[in-house]
Amino acid sequence: MERLDEQLRFIKEIDRLKGVLRQSPLVDSSRRENSAEHSWHLAMMAVTLGEYAPREADLGRVITMVLLHDIVEIDAGDTFVYATDTALAEAERAERAAADRIFALLPADQAGWLRAVWDEFEERRTAEARFARALDRLQPMLANYHTRGGTWRAHGVTADQVLAKVRFIEDGSAALGTYARELVAASVDKGFLAPAASR
Amino acid sequence: MERLDEQLRFIKEIDRLKGVLRQSPLVDSSRRENSAEHSWHLAMMAVTLGEYAPREADLGRVITMVLLHDIVEIDAGDTFVYATDTALAEAERAERAAADRIFALLPADQAGWLRAVWDEFEERRTAEARFARALDRLQPMLANYHTRGGTWRAHGVTADQVLAKVRFIEDGSAALGTYARELVAASVDKGFLAPAASR
Repeated sequence: MERLDEQLRFIKEIDRLKGVLRQSPLVDSSRRENSAEHSWHLAMMAVTLGEYAPREADLGRVITMVLLHDIVEIDAGDTFVYATDTALAEAERAERAAADRIFALLPADQAGWLRAVWDEFEERRTAEARFARALDRLQPMLANYHTRGGTWRAHGVTADQVLAKVRFIEDGSAALGTYARELVAASVDKGFLAPAASR
Repeated sequence: MERLDEQLRFIKEIDRLKGVLRQSPLVDSSRRENSAEHSWHLAMMAVTLGEYAPREADLGRVITMVLLHDIVEIDAGDTFVYATDTALAEAERAERAAADRIFALLPADQAGWLRAVWDEFEERRTAEARFARALDRLQPMLANYHTRGGTWRAHGVTADQVLAKVRFIEDGSAALGTYARELVAASVDKGFLAPAASR
């Protein structure tokens, strides 16, 4: 049963994703979210919001993609979406090294298949990857809205910074992009999010 | 956008599953697992162990099933697998009421579809439901093994009780059932699990 042993080593290893904390709060503000439960939430979003994906997108592939997109954080940690470009580039290198290590725990055929799904998410070229990315951007926005500002307030993020990320949502789903833009406006109206910094 | 609003209310509501604690520990023993990250782990198991499902099983359906099988715990809480029959029957009633409430947050067509998937899991009649159940039983066994006894030790569970649950694993996957039986034997050998109580 060497093949099954390898697969179960991978299953054991990824348990560590439950210990990787993101910046985003839970909706009840009790604590920060971890990357495993975040990935679950994205998968449930893919299940329920699939009708807003481009017609050609394979939703099964989207779900696999969001389930595994963050497992590299076991080694690389979570990088705040509003980190500096230098920090984001460094994170990308670390995540690639993590993907090399973690997927290699699996039998070669599965390692190749799942690594390809992960690479596809990172490259953002297919409809599936762009829709998965849209969900990944929308989910923390919802958490910030429901917690009256969440990490936007904690880190002094402004509406223009959030709108720059909304482009990734529009790129994956026109309907979700429109919704995200409305959410930013409502957040500014309610004082959850500071408007663009004056220059 | 009333339809999207309903869907996003559901997405917000299920965030609460991250606050439902199970008995099972994380592999690093740092804390108990919550039901959202548990559901993610099962979905990753479905992705990587799908080859051990019966040939006729639709893995996409299995993944949807494990993603949503526990959301009723938002209202009903988690019930320990070794609870009394009375407690398990009471939990079943509470979970059914929770399913009535939570799925109804969604637009009617989706509520009907996802409720049917949830009912299918509960009824354990299809190959998909039986395989999903097998994963749901195997995952905490792995956590208990990796934590040198975990909840088995904490609750004085014996090998004969665990083997009674292994039948559900065999029912969903012959290969995973064989593996689980070996895991129980190894756990007894290593002193992680007490052998059957003498009568």
